[in-house]
Formats: sequence, C-alpha cells, structure tokens
Amino acid sequence: MTITTPKPSGRIPDRSIYERRESEVRSYARAMPRQFDKAEGVWMHDNQGGRYLDFLSGCSTLNYGHNHPILKQALIDYISADGIAHGLDLHTDAKEKFLNTYEELILKPRGLDYRAMFTGPTGTNAVEAAIKLARKVTGRENVIAFTNGFHGMTLGALACTGNAAKRGGAGVPLSHVSHEPYDGYYGPDVDTAELLEQRLADPSSGLDAPAAILVETVQGEGGLNAASPEWLRKIAALAKEHGALFIVDDIQAGCGRTGNFFSFEDMGFTPDIVTQAKSLSGMGLPFALTLFRPELDQWSPGEHNGTFRGNNHAFVTATAALRHFWSDTAFEDDIARRGTLLEQRLETMAREHGFETRGRGMMRGINVGSGELADAVTAACFDDGLIIETSGAHGEVIKVLAPLVIDDALLAQGLDILEARLREAMADDLAVAAE
Amino acid sequence: MTITTPKPSGRIPDRSIYERRESEVRSYARAMPRQFDKAEGVWMHDNQGGRYLDFLSGCSTLNYGHNHPILKQALIDYISADGIAHGLDLHTDAKEKFLNTYEELILKPRGLDYRAMFTGPTGTNAVEAAIKLARKVTGRENVIAFTNGFHGMTLGALACTGNAAKRGGAGVPLSHVSHEPYDGYYGPDVDTAELLEQRLADPSSGLDAPAAILVETVQGEGGLNAASPEWLRKIAALAKEHGALFIVDDIQAGCGRTGNFFSFEDMGFTPDIVTQAKSLSGMGLPFALTLFRPELDQWSPGEHNGTFRGNNHAFVTATAALRHFWSDTAFEDDIARRGTLLEQRLETMAREHGFETRGRGMMRGINVGSGELADAVTAACFDDGLIIETSGAHGEVIKVLAPLVIDDALLAQGLDILEARLREAMADDLAVAAE
Amino acid sequence: MTITTPKPSGRIPDRSIYERRESEVRSYARAMPRQFDKAEGVWMHDNQGGRYLDFLSGCSTLNYGHNHPILKQALIDYISADGIAHGLDLHTDAKEKFLNTYEELILKPRGLDYRAMFTGPTGTNAVEAAIKLARKVTGRENVIAFTNGFHGMTLGALACTGNAAKRGGAGVPLSHVSHEPYDGYYGPDVDTAELLEQRLADPSSGLDAPAAILVETVQGEGGLNAASPEWLRKIAALAKEHGALFIVDDIQAGCGRTGNFFSFEDMGFTPDIVTQAKSLSGMGLPFALTLFRPELDQWSPGEHNGTFRGNNHAFVTATAALRHFWSDTAFEDDIARRGTLLEQRLETMAREHGFETRGRGMMRGINVGSGELADAVTAACFDDGLIIETSGAHGEVIKVLAPLVIDDALLAQGLDILEARLREAMADDLAVAAE
Amino acid sequence: MTITTPKPSGRIPDRSIYERRESEVRSYARAMPRQFDKAEGVWMHDNQGGRYLDFLSGCSTLNYGHNHPILKQALIDYISADGIAHGLDLHTDAKEKFLNTYEELILKPRGLDYRAMFTGPTGTNAVEAAIKLARKVTGRENVIAFTNGFHGMTLGALACTGNAAKRGGAGVPLSHVSHEPYDGYYGPDVDTAELLEQRLADPSSGLDAPAAILVETVQGEGGLNAASPEWLRKIAALAKEHGALFIVDDIQAGCGRTGNFFSFEDMGFTPDIVTQAKSLSGMGLPFALTLFRPELDQWSPGEHNGTFRGNNHAFVTATAALRHFWSDTAFEDDIARRGTLLEQRLETMAREHGFETRGRGMMRGINVGSGELADAVTAACFDDGLIIETSGAHGEVIKVLAPLVIDDALLAQGLDILEARLREAMADDLAVAAE
Repeated sequence: MTITTPKPSGRIPDRSIYERRESEVRSYARAMPRQFDKAEGVWMHDNQGGRYLDFLSGCSTLNYGHNHPILKQALIDYISADGIAHGLDLHTDAKEKFLNTYEELILKPRGLDYRAMFTGPTGTNAVEAAIKLARKVTGRENVIAFTNGFHGMTLGALACTGNAAKRGGAGVPLSHVSHEPYDGYYGPDVDTAELLEQRLADPSSGLDAPAAILVETVQGEGGLNAASPEWLRKIAALAKEHGALFIVDDIQAGCGRTGNFFSFEDMGFTPDIVTQAKSLSGMGLPFALTLFRPELDQWSPGEHNGTFRGNNHAFVTATAALRHFWSDTAFEDDIARRGTLLEQRLETMAREHGFETRGRGMMRGINVGSGELADAVTAACFDDGLIIETSGAHGEVIKVLAPLVIDDALLAQGLDILEARLREAMADDLAVAAE
Repeated sequence: MTITTPKPSGRIPDRSIYERRESEVRSYARAMPRQFDKAEGVWMHDNQGGRYLDFLSGCSTLNYGHNHPILKQALIDYISADGIAHGLDLHTDAKEKFLNTYEELILKPRGLDYRAMFTGPTGTNAVEAAIKLARKVTGRENVIAFTNGFHGMTLGALACTGNAAKRGGAGVPLSHVSHEPYDGYYGPDVDTAELLEQRLADPSSGLDAPAAILVETVQGEGGLNAASPEWLRKIAALAKEHGALFIVDDIQAGCGRTGNFFSFEDMGFTPDIVTQAKSLSGMGLPFALTLFRPELDQWSPGEHNGTFRGNNHAFVTATAALRHFWSDTAFEDDIARRGTLLEQRLETMAREHGFETRGRGMMRGINVGSGELADAVTAACFDDGLIIETSGAHGEVIKVLAPLVIDDALLAQGLDILEARLREAMADDLAVAAE
Repeated sequence: MTITTPKPSGRIPDRSIYERRESEVRSYARAMPRQFDKAEGVWMHDNQGGRYLDFLSGCSTLNYGHNHPILKQALIDYISADGIAHGLDLHTDAKEKFLNTYEELILKPRGLDYRAMFTGPTGTNAVEAAIKLARKVTGRENVIAFTNGFHGMTLGALACTGNAAKRGGAGVPLSHVSHEPYDGYYGPDVDTAELLEQRLADPSSGLDAPAAILVETVQGEGGLNAASPEWLRKIAALAKEHGALFIVDDIQAGCGRTGNFFSFEDMGFTPDIVTQAKSLSGMGLPFALTLFRPELDQWSPGEHNGTFRGNNHAFVTATAALRHFWSDTAFEDDIARRGTLLEQRLETMAREHGFETRGRGMMRGINVGSGELADAVTAACFDDGLIIETSGAHGEVIKVLAPLVIDDALLAQGLDILEARLREAMADDLAVAAE
Repeated sequence: MTITTPKPSGRIPDRSIYERRESEVRSYARAMPRQFDKAEGVWMHDNQGGRYLDFLSGCSTLNYGHNHPILKQALIDYISADGIAHGLDLHTDAKEKFLNTYEELILKPRGLDYRAMFTGPTGTNAVEAAIKLARKVTGRENVIAFTNGFHGMTLGALACTGNAAKRGGAGVPLSHVSHEPYDGYYGPDVDTAELLEQRLADPSSGLDAPAAILVETVQGEGGLNAASPEWLRKIAALAKEHGALFIVDDIQAGCGRTGNFFSFEDMGFTPDIVTQAKSLSGMGLPFALTLFRPELDQWSPGEHNGTFRGNNHAFVTATAALRHFWSDTAFEDDIARRGTLLEQRLETMAREHGFETRGRGMMRGINVGSGELADAVTAACFDDGLIIETSGAHGEVIKVLAPLVIDDALLAQGLDILEARLREAMADDLAVAAE
C-alpha cells in the first residue's frame, strides 16, 4: 500500500553547493535529501516532479498548510501596494490591524488581558524576553524548567533546554536554571508536582527561589510528553505560592495544534507570560510574541529590542489567519475530530506492536523505543512520499504533525503509509533478531 | 527651508490599541508618533497623507530602500507560484540560488572561502551562533568585546553588548565576556590595540585566554565610532597570535553601508567569522547569516538550529538584491560618491558649531555633545518630514543612515533640513544660555 | 533533676566590646551568652565560675575533648623547643611525622591509597580544592550535591550547600552545581538513587554531565540525615558509571564521630576524593586535608595554595591524636558502645513524645518538629549546664555531639538533662495548647 | 662572600613519604629541598644542622620573626592553663582581650571605627567575606579587581586574582569580576585611574556597576608593584562616587610590612572594608579578619561562618604582638630605618645591572627581567644559607621579605649574599651570551 504521489524522476542533480557553502549544522536536509521548490496546502514538491504529504508542517509552523490561498493573497496584495515591510517598532496599519484582531478574536473571547511584546521574530527570542522580564519583575535569577523541555538555542533559552547535545553547543556553562522532572518523568506513580512542592517549600533544598517556572504543556521536541491539566494546575499554583511567574512556552503546542488557540485553554489557570511563534504568522513567516499580564509590563522603552521585531508581512498574514480560522469554532471542531482520528489510528498501531502513544490533539506520536527504529520507519515513509520526523531524547518517538487543515481522507492515507512502513520495519527487526 | 513633503492632515486618530495591547518596551514609535502604511524607495508614508524622507533605513536594514521594485517583483512572483515559504533547513531552489549567487558574486570576487550558516533570522541569533562556534572550536570561554559595542539582546549576545541599560534588562549577571577599549576610546593619543596586546601577553592580567575577539568596524549603536584599518589589523593579528578567532559583526556596517559589501574589505585581514543580517535580505525581511572558514565548521548536525532558519522569501529577495546591486562596481561607486557628499556636508555643519563628525561611507553622524540637543534636532527634523535618529552612549550622535540608493539631490535636501534644524536648535540653546 | 555543675556567680559583666567591635554575624554567642575561659575534656568553664558539659564539641571539632592532656603536652613541648609554627608548604619534621603516622595508622590498615593535599586549614578550603580537582581532572563543570548538604561558605563550596539563608549571603548566583534529593528526601518509599540514575542516563534531563558527586554520609548541618550504605554504594556506582568522581565530605562525620576514622568504612566503596577538617588536629586547631587517589593528583605545583597550609602545630597535635586514639581498636569499641547508649536513650525520648531520631554512631539527634521547640529545649539545657545545639533546615533537630571520649556515666547525666528539659518543654507546649 | 651560617651535613635522608603521600601541588619544598625542624627569630634550621637566614618570612606571615619569645611564652602559658583552644564564635576571655587591645592600640589611635568579623582563619576566607558583604550591601554583583592582583584560591577570591595559572585551576569560568589596570600598568605616562574613571562614567563601556573595588596597596604576589597614594586616593574617590565599597586587601602589606600597621595609613582615605591575615596572629597561626564600617554590618547571625573562626591560640598571640610592637612608635621607627637601608642597597644592586626596584617599606624587590635569572639567584642564595623567593607574573622579581625585627647588621649580611649571587649570575649570563 502506498499513497499515490508522483515520485521524483531523473538522476539526483549536483548538490555540491551545499557541501561547499552550507555549514555542517544542517540537519533535516540529510534525512530528506531532495530539493524542494513549491508547496501548497498539505503538499510539498521537489524539483524533480516528486510530491510529498507533509506530516511535519515545519515543526508545527505550518498549521494552516503551505501557502494558504487567503493568506497568500493578503500578502501579495500588501506587497503589491507597497505596504511597509520593515518598520522597526513604528506604528503601522498592519500592526494596528493585527493588534485589534488579536484583541478581538483571541484575547477578549477567552477573557485574557495580555500585553504583546514583539520580540525578534524567532521563538528563542520570545523565550529570552519572557525570562528576562520574569527576572526583572521578581528580582530573582533562577528559572525552573523541566526535563526534556526545549526552548531555543540562544544562551538564555538554551539554559532552559534539557537536551545535552544542544546544551553542549553553548561552549560555556548554562546557569541560572534548575531542571525539574516533568509530569510523568518518574513513571505514573510519582507525582512530580509534589516533588517540586517539597523542594520549593524546603529552605535547605538548594533550589534557589525561582523568578519563573517555564513549561510546555506538550513537549514538542522532548518526545510529545503531554502534561495533565491537574499537574499543570498544581505547577501554576506552586508558582503563585512561591512568588514566581508562570510561563507557558506555547510556541509549538499553540495556534491550534493541541486543539485550541492556546494549549492551556480550559485548564483552570492563566499563565503570567506566554510565548508564541511558529504558526503565529500562519504562513511560515518569522514572527514571535511574548504576552504578559499588564502589571508585569515593567520594561523601559527599548530595554529589549531587535531589528526585525516589526515584520509587517507577518502581521498581514497573521491577521488574515486569525480572521479566517479563529472567528468561530469551526476550525477547533475540525481539529478535535481529526485529533480523535489520529489518536485512534496511533493507538491501533501502538497496540499492534506493544508501543505507547504520546501527545494531545493533533500533536501526537508513537514511542517505538529506539531512535534507530524510528529513523528506519520515517526514512521508508519519505521514500513513500510522506514527510514525517522523530522527537524525544533518543529520537524514539515518531511524531505526526500534519497540517491542521488536512482533509480527513488524506490524514488517513498518510497514516496508512506510516502503519505499513512501521509494520515492515518491525518485521525486519524480528527477522534480524531471529538470525 | 523645508523639504517639500506633504504633511499629514486631520486629527490624530485613536491609538489606544497600542497603550492597551503593546508593551511599554516600544521605543521608536514614541519619537515618531505617526502611523505608517506604505513606503517605497527613500519615502515612508503615514496614513494621514504625510510623507517622510527616511534617513534611518530601518537602522541600516533598508540599504536598497523600501520595496525596491526588482526585489518586490521577485518576491511577488515567488509567492504567486507557491514557492516554499518556510523550509526549516531543507534544500530548496530558493536556497540553492542564494548560495550560488552569494558564492559567485560575493565570495569568489573577494577571494573569500566561507561556509554559511543560516541561523535564526535575527542579528542576535547570528552573533550567538558565532560565539558558540568560537567557544566550541577553541575550547575557551572568554570572548573579548569592546566598549560601546552592540551585538544583540539574547543572553549570549547581550553579554557582548556594552550598553548598561540593555545589560540591565538581563536580570542575571552577564558573564564570559571581557569588554576592552575600542579604537580611540581613550582619545587619539592612546593606542588601545597596544593596551590589549599588553593585557593578552601578561599571564597575570586577569584577562582569560579568549575564544574570540568580536568587533564592529563601525559601531552603529555605540556612536558611529569607526575603527581605523590599522587598529583592526592589529586586533586581527592579536587574535591570531593568541589563538582566538576574529569575528567581525558586520550586521549594521555591511551590505554596502560603509562602501563595500563587507565593511572590512581591502583592510588587509580576513575575519575567521562574520555575522550578517539587517540589509542582507534587501527588503527588510528577517534573515541572518554566520559565515566562517571551512576548517571551523565543526558543528554537529542540528547542534544549533531555529525554526525560521530557512526563510525562503528572504532567500529570494536577497538573491535579487545581490544580482541587481553587486554584479558590478556601479553601486559601490555610487556609495563612494554619496559618502563623500555626506562627509563634506556633515563636516561643514560640525565646523559651524564646533562639533565632530563620526563614521565612514554612508554611515556617518555628528556628535552634538548631548542627547537632549540631538533629540531636539531629530524631533524638529521629523516635523519637517525627515526621519532621522540618534546613536551613542548618551544618544549624543545624530546619525544619517539614508538608503544607499538615494538620489544625490534628495540626500542634499535631507541634509539641508538637518542643517537648518541643527542651526535653530543651537540658536535656541544660546538664547536659553543667555537668559 | 539537674547535673551538679557549678552555676556562674556574680552579675553579668560589661560585654559592650562585642556590640561595639564584633560583627553582627556572630551566632553561637547569642544563644550561649556567657564568656568562656578554660576547658578540659568534656567541660567548658565560663569566667564567673560556671561549668558546662559540652554536647556540641565545636560542631564535632573536639571529638577527643578539650585540651586532651597528651595532645596538649605534645604541643607545649613542640612550642617550647622552638618547633616551626608556620612553614608554608616546606618539608618539616612535624609534617613528615604526620604523613608517616597517617600512612601507617590510617591508610595502610584500611587498604587506602590516597595522596594528601594540605589546603588552607578550613573545611571550606578543603572542599574548594576537592571540586577544583574534580573539574580539572574530568574537564567537566557541573557538581552534583544534595538537598540539605552543607559544605562551606566560600563561593565554590557555598554553591554546593543547600541552605537558602547561607546561599543568599553570596550576593551572586551560585552556579555549576545541581542539587539532587538525598537519601530519604522524598520519604522511605522513594529511592532517590534511582531518580538520580534516571536523570543521569537521560540525555535530555537538563542535568549536565557531572565532574563529581559530593556527599556527606551523615548531614551534620542538614539535620543529621544518615544515608544508608546501600544508597551510598549506588551513588558511588553511578558516579563511576558516568565518569564523575565520588567525593565524600567527611569533615563533620569523620574522625570517629560515626564510629570509625572515616564515616564510609566497611560500606563497600572507596571515594575518589575525601575531605577532612574539624577534629583532624585533635585539639581544635585549624587543619584540613583533601585526600585523593594518586592517579588524580594532576595538580601543577602551586596551582592551589594558601598561606596557612602548613600549620605545624596542627601536625603535632594531629600526630599525637592518631597515635593515642587510632593505634588499636579500643577507641572504636568505646564509640560503638557509647553510640548504642546514645541511640537507646534518644529512642526512648523520641518514643515518649512521638518524635523520630536521626543519625549514626555518636552523631545523633531528635527531630522535635519545630525550631522553636528545639531552641526552647536547648536554652533550658544551657541554663542547666549543658551545651547542646540544633541542626536542620528549620533548626528542628536537637543534636548530640558529645566528645567521643566522654565517660559513659557523664553521657547519661547529660542525656538526663536533655530528657527532663524536653519533657518540661512538651508539657509547656501542651499547657499553652490547652489554654 | 658568604654569611657564616652552618651548612647541613650528612646525606639527604629518605624523603619518599612526600612523593608517596603529599600532593604534587606542593611548591616551596621543591626549590628549598631541605627538611626544617626549628626556627627562632630570623633563623630557620634544617634537621641536618643547616641554618638559614629567612628573607621570606612565610610570605610576610612572620613579620615579628619565628617563635618570638614573648608571643611564644604567652601561648605556652595559655595552653598550660587549659585556655580554650577552639570556641566557634563564643565569647572567650582571649577574644575579649584581643578585641579590647585591637580597639585601644590599633583603631582608636588611628581614628578608625571598624567592626571585626572573624572569618575562617585564612586570607582567602577574609576576602570572600569582604566581597560577599559588599555585594549584599550594594545589591550589585560586579567587583573591580586589578591586573596582577592576588586575593586567594577559593572561587570567589580566585575570580579576583589575576594570575592565569591560578585561575586555570578553577575548572569553571570565574565570573562577576572585572580586572582593571593597576597603577603604572601601562607605564608611567598613563594614569590608569583616569582610564577607570572614564569607563565607570561611560554607560556603554560594558563595565557593570561595581559592588566594590578591591585593591592591594602593594601587590605581594603580583611583583611588588606599589600604588602611589595619589592613585589610591583617586580609586577610593571613584568607588565612593560610583556607589561601590572600597576594599583594601591588606593581608600581605599590612601588620607593619610597609611601615605602619595598615598599609594605607596617612594616605588620605579610609577603606570601607579591610582584610587582614598573615602576620595578624604574630606567630604564624591561622587567623584572619575582615573589618568594615559599622553601617555596613548588615550580616544576619551566622550568614557567613566557619568552624575555625574562633582560633583562640591566635587571639592570644595576636594580643601579645599588638601589646609588644604597637604600643608606641618604636617599631614603626625601626621599620622605617630598615626600609631605607633595604631601599638603598637594592637601588645600588639595580643600578649596577640596569634593573629596577619595586615596593615600599620592608616589602621590596628587584625586577631582574626574567624568572630564570631570578630563580638562579635565589637558588644560589639558598645554597648560601639565605631563604629568598620571587614574585611577579613571570617570577621575575626577587623579593626581600625579611622579618621586620631583623637586626640591621643581619639585614646587611643577607643583602650581601643577594648582591654577590646576583653579580655572579649576571656574569654567568654574560659568559653564556659571549659563547
């Protein structure tokens, strides 16, 4: 069984420019050694006629698919009319529209009162701004982050990231952050919120009073671990009790990925600070926001800045995306339905092989126990026209990050490929083991 | 005397959305309290009919002006054809073209052999990548940066930044960086390269062996201080002698601003690492590069990454900009001519009032001795249709960052405004002093 | 019931010199507001005729009692003969004798092959040397220390200390140390060695690869928590498995306090590094040692030093103490017997009031649940001629650190006082509660 | 010419215990490979009949010579009477006497109002306490220290130390300290106080607002550089102007070494904090003090502590030393006369060979330009019965730290040896050069 996608034709052309001129740091291009040129909706096209169903979505940056026609048209219109592209942090029509729309469609309906800070347009910059602000407001230095958390690559955010290989790139020790066990880290019988509570309450635990507790509700890079609402509520309450700000890094799990605009909706707590990026612009353009309660807005003018903090193209597409997808609940209903589909299919696959599923909403995966196996499966999928990647400390979780706008039938087709390739890989494993 | 630009009409509309929803961290919008909508070439337009000559150029992000027609058309074409917008670090046609063009038009003609790392698309991310790599390659932790240097707002780059107000926003101590006096810091009679040489040679100076020396050839935010080629050569030689990598942060001074594509051309040294951003995309889109010698490319795949490291829109406009402006020397000749014009006019103004000029190429200013005076002058200019800003530790340098493509006559007109407003402000000052 | 010790007579004399000239940092003098002049064996005398049984022993610095006659005579003889007092790190007869004796009586019988480093003569200096060496040898920066651990007040050792009030005195963030839960920290049902094992094995836990694991076998300041041999063995094995050095800080628990010369004897592991101080000189003179396996002795000459690292008076008394107390097993037998006595008496008291005991050997206490109660009891004991102090995060553990040489009958008498005063304080508490 | 000291006789005995059991970190014992047993006044004796004139004085720890009879007798009397040896920070008769004497003979006559903090009894502990307090009181983190400064080996003090080899032993980056050029660092024509003034006044210099400026008036380990009173006054004024505390580390230069009890007397400023150690006990016993203005005494009880902070033996000898040497000005007159003698003799030697002298009072040396030459001279001196050592970044300064109590004739004799051995070494150098 394969999805009927055209395969690329012709010999692989000369790619020596990458060897010669692009740094060895490149990664995805190694596992997916094609050259892409166009993309629309759920499809990516290579420049040799190949077509690929995208179950990666730019790591959740393309929740609305590639080049969504409404966003695309809005952007073309804006550029054609000489709309300002780059405006530092000047007031622009595009920014005003974005702010008004965000207030009307996102904040007001959810009863949220946040101020928005346009940081440099990357997730790591948004996280840096968030922890800077928490330290400034509280006068404390320590930030509590969690095992398997991923928050970015600049030094402040990297210190909050758990992954040793990423941390090792810093070249200096990463300080002022304590990494505590995430929900379920020590198995289902240990409530890690209670462990944290004990350490915070103990004046001799060595855990310095935190400026902030920084958490992802689902750990995108860390293996799709989804924290329970109860655990998150406890952590939020602990933060409040101990004078720390509660920061939700919603960069990967937000913008509908887990079902709602924010990943923490209806959970019974309101973060003090929220970071957003990835799918915020809706079309994959660089854009990031740090939201916080107005009382926390103690920045001096220009105390944190960045040349590209006024990416007006992103304001335009983000506004169009908000209007199109978040004016009513239809999109959330779709996500809920597709998320259930995805869950059921993954559960079936997991049960077949004795694995476990992970995640929430349309941010789910299967823990296949080893990075080698996961890589074998995703490589086979790619050959079959399905772009899919892995996650987790050992890359042991095959993750499905399909566009949220995917047609149910196509979602099923993509999962068929995954199911088949997984079954084959397991058979190969057994064959090898039997030798 | 005023430039004949239309003034905005009508009452100032409701802007409460900014008060209500945008963080207090906003800065430029305070000094230029209009709302802008369109821009082309050297002109910005507010939404009430006002027109402004742009002598700020997005802090040197818009060296080719706003919405340059060739870049704009290339981008519209790309989007219209469903060109990939967001590609993580996958190979794309747009990236391949950019790399080939960069190699052909930039690297080869200059005899430079660099690898390019697409970092998160902001200058600070490029600087973080640069110092990470230097620390990784050398196994050392200390970075030497300079007084009045500005390198970004994320923790690693901020530690390299001299400005106390920016540093204070960190909320944690900024470590692993030594700030040494820049060229001319102690006046014309003290060779600060010699001071640094002594400290580096002295095993008891307290200066830890550096992984890198990080320098701007002209300090954009720090007051337009331009280092002499002799000084830069000495610093480059010191880096080499002491096993440190020599990093030129060319984010603001590069892309033609100081006369050539790189600000250090023809100076007799080759940096080990170069950072670029701002005008690199040509149209103000977020884009950043870290270049380094191939021997230094010791990254593991994915050791440093970032969601928006593959901003394909920026690849497209950057490629178009390289082809249009850097295929021959015409553009450089223009910059040279305009730079001389600018220099002469600023010298005249400075002489009239006993001030000093600063800078190099089309990156020049007048040190008027106080931030208050500078602010008064730039505010008067804005009322007169000229967007111009200040720089320096006390904001005491009025800086001219006109688009490099500006018509000579318009450049003169803008400078006429500056000259007149400066003269008036000086007269006001004298009148106040006489009271 | 009271011990028949003389009470001080006369009015309290003028002590304003302390108010005027000694820093507010003084602590013990506040709870024990007498002025002492002489001391011998288990007795301290104030200068108004009062006599006190010493159940504090200089926080385990006076395990052999005050001014032990044999040590005292050896010191007087040495001084009288113009023996060198201060010798930097020169070879001296006194040092040679100490090293030979230490080798003969301590190392050889225990099958230990250590080199000795004479650090500055305080425990914190010995800890600083230990962690410096571990970082140097492994090339790693992180040190794992434990909740409630206490290792000293200089910045390197303070970073390893758990107590928030002590840490707060640093004035800078304390970095490069991870604090993990000690044995029993999360109650009897959670094996914290397993938690640590999981974090060390997980490349995404945020726990940087450790240079060392630093542990007290019994936490003297942290509440007399005694780690089980099984737990310590696991921790030692984890250190080895993960390339970290295993450091036992034996400053308070060593020199016989827990029963043997080292607190870890017969536990089935050999630390890579051991720190000693407190009772090492035997007479309360400043003296500290860092011991390590010869392969770890990678110091360059003078790479770590200190003016008083050659305290020859301490060499003399330490040698005399080793010869007198550690030439055979009689002393260890005595400690064992007295430790059992102490354990039984404390257990009885604890049972009476529903409390728990803590500790091991002659390093034991009762957790009375609150610092206020513990303070009330120890203050009443002091009025009754018994010097005794508290320990723990909240000062909630009354700790008995009697001289190891105490006569069994005197030990019982001191415990009688404690028992009576505790009973009274509990009765007072009940009375108050009943009101 | 040689001083008529007995030479050691017999073969060098077995010293394998040091190889076997003492760490490679030992240093002085390598250059002076004898074993010492007794010492009195200016003389040290080895255990084979050799006698040595001591021009090292335990690095200024033995300013009153070895085993001064009055101090020695006071200590023997105290021990014989069972005086308390170790008293934590309890009030003791010995401590009261010390405080009263220090107030009467040191503080009052000099018009100084300081509180004394008994830190752990090493210089580095005193420095750690000083910088902790400065950070606590000011709420700032940065400490300004100077090139070639030496302040100790624990992490906080080591960060203030300039020497790269010592710093390298830390194994972690040393942070929160800026190293600025000491007086004369850039030659006689550059006023480094002015350089510092500029950097402190410049909000963009990258120099974080300092909690303290920490300085030695003469750099004992750093090459006997003596700061001028003018420079020190400027630095003290800069500290005050910028809200930093001015700390004089008087550990090596104090206690008469430079002429008065404090090295900064009569210079026209009063430090906020002073550290003392080395010769404070008078007999080489471990003892350290941190002095500060009463308003700065913001410690909480026990916020900084240390087991050996109440070394009563040291209180006794320190009190005796204060009474004997500092009750009148006779001792200071002696130092002044001998200092002049020393200065003249060193100047003569320096002139003969084209060298320069360094230092002040009885803390002087000759910079012979290379560590190899200095080592050759001091080794020859040792063979001739003179103990003398080197200092400076390259060990290029031969330093004379004779006991302050040395008889003028003996001082001359020792200098005769130095003069002769220096002349020989210079002749050897010339001979080698001529080959």
